[in-house]
Amino acid sequence: MTDFATLYWENESLVILDQRRLPSEEVYLPLKNLAAACEAIRTLAVRGAPAIGVAAAYSAVLGANALLDDPAIFHQSFQAVCAQLAATRPTAVNLVWALKRLSHVLSQVPHPASVPELKKILLQEAHAICAEDKICCQKIGAHGSIYFDDGDGVLTHCNAGALATAGMGTALAPIYVAAQTGKKIKVFADETRPLLQGARLTTWELKRRSIDVTLITDSMAASLMYQGFIQKVIVGADRIAANGDVANKIGTYGVAVLARHHGIPFYVAAPLSTIDPQAPNGSAIVIEERHSDEVTSFAGFPIAPEGVKVKNPAFDVTPAELVTAIITDAGVLKPPYLPAIKKLFQ
Amino acid sequence: MTDFATLYWENESLVILDQRRLPSEEVYLPLKNLAAACEAIRTLAVRGAPAIGVAAAYSAVLGANALLDDPAIFHQSFQAVCAQLAATRPTAVNLVWALKRLSHVLSQVPHPASVPELKKILLQEAHAICAEDKICCQKIGAHGSIYFDDGDGVLTHCNAGALATAGMGTALAPIYVAAQTGKKIKVFADETRPLLQGARLTTWELKRRSIDVTLITDSMAASLMYQGFIQKVIVGADRIAANGDVANKIGTYGVAVLARHHGIPFYVAAPLSTIDPQAPNGSAIVIEERHSDEVTSFAGFPIAPEGVKVKNPAFDVTPAELVTAIITDAGVLKPPYLPAIKKLFQ
Repeated sequence: MTDFATLYWENESLVILDQRRLPSEEVYLPLKNLAAACEAIRTLAVRGAPAIGVAAAYSAVLGANALLDDPAIFHQSFQAVCAQLAATRPTAVNLVWALKRLSHVLSQVPHPASVPELKKILLQEAHAICAEDKICCQKIGAHGSIYFDDGDGVLTHCNAGALATAGMGTALAPIYVAAQTGKKIKVFADETRPLLQGARLTTWELKRRSIDVTLITDSMAASLMYQGFIQKVIVGADRIAANGDVANKIGTYGVAVLARHHGIPFYVAAPLSTIDPQAPNGSAIVIEERHSDEVTSFAGFPIAPEGVKVKNPAFDVTPAELVTAIITDAGVLKPPYLPAIKKLFQ
Repeated sequence: MTDFATLYWENESLVILDQRRLPSEEVYLPLKNLAAACEAIRTLAVRGAPAIGVAAAYSAVLGANALLDDPAIFHQSFQAVCAQLAATRPTAVNLVWALKRLSHVLSQVPHPASVPELKKILLQEAHAICAEDKICCQKIGAHGSIYFDDGDGVLTHCNAGALATAGMGTALAPIYVAAQTGKKIKVFADETRPLLQGARLTTWELKRRSIDVTLITDSMAASLMYQGFIQKVIVGADRIAANGDVANKIGTYGVAVLARHHGIPFYVAAPLSTIDPQAPNGSAIVIEERHSDEVTSFAGFPIAPEGVKVKNPAFDVTPAELVTAIITDAGVLKPPYLPAIKKLFQ
């Protein structure tokens, strides 16, 4: 069985592994135009902050390639392409970041350039974004792998793996690298209610890459820690504040508290771009409240009384004092995080 | 809207509220014979340790009532009825306890008694078991309600409410009594994966009885505690060891650790019969491992890769040192539990 790829560029198309159909089916979907790409991003066929950034870049290329070869209106039309893409996932920071980067590269082109030349430059930049994401994952993997020992049981929450990036993932990268060096790691994957990214995606990719993985419900983590099954915890991050507070998938904070209670190291792995030095601490990070349907129904089947009140925050904030280390592509940050992060952004 | 009843005896039948159809439909199922009753217990149409005990008693009466009026074989035939019932839920302690109590009352009848007389005695004993369960719930409610204040946010896990007993429940009884005395309590119900008793049952009964209830996934409890939504936690128990260690639905231990981290009192409410003075501590309690299907599928829909490894313990053990108080029908136990429990069973 060959390896899988989360997304790649082939025959003038963005090809994505359709994550809506995982884990039942492994289907590669060639996206040939902007409309198809927007739909794929909007419906989570491709997801995970870094992967969305790369997908957005290639999607913008799809949009650009359909524009007329008229240099007078190309730049303006390309901005419309970007606006359409930006609206697919309004809270996805990496999406906007990738689009800005393409716009910037366009603005740096020495005029006059032909539209075919501009289209070529955009594709090159998208390829660069994709390649950098892969390298970023590899660096996180290399920096983090030393924290994982042969025989370790490692708990992870949600999916911050290969399926969330163009490369080998963020939180799972150190595990993949540790495994490549011959360490036997046993991963325990929280199912991660409400959207079950752990059950659907993390188990799938680890199994697919021959890493020992066991699925548990979120409520089982504490008991497994108590019984000695878990030696390390590693998770990804959606945003990290200047003081090291970590916003990540709902449930992460609870896992961090449990890890502290059991004396288990709690690692966060994320690209440097996840750190937001403008947010002084976790309370500056706005937590998206999602639709109650995600909690009250499953696969369209109601599991709770009609009209019951629900809370459904998408993320929680783990205070920096519960984080043992933050593993980035630029190196490993250790407490106190405020000066460590300040130094990085000087 | 009238109130609901979990189970009752009417027209020579055991009538149960069919919990397989909750929360979508409120259907009362009259069980007219032993086979129907066994099927209902086996398939969780009626569940919860105390409710199973009461259901088993009435089911044994159904079985007895179908026996021939031949005193020579009645006792032996009744034992066969009990054996059939005992096999429906092999790990349900209350089920066996109720059947033993009926057998004991039969053995105490001054001979000779006619079979109709014996059947009448059995029904009286079943009624007594049912009435005692209701009184037990009321006592737990009265003893526990003082711990809940007007305006409290209270987290509960699984369902230890009216739907688990013939009365007003165990863990939810103090909340019902507090509400009756005019205190406004806001309950947060963990959905309780894998079987979703919180989402399906706890929300249903609290909503039905006009208690303010909000459904959350198990992974959200920590974040709500951090944000100050939760002032108290109360859960039921499946078994309590002589030192106060508490076996309860998987996820309970994690909630107890989170409560301790946030300085929130963690109460356990259970009938005295739940305490097993023969088990010196939690490690003496065998934890049932259930089928992986419960974790890998959700409402019958597969959510994980085929063949993925799974852990699915039905219960966990919360060490006594995390329990603020154990609220029983005989009064409230406080640490140190070993002498407190010893005193009760002297």
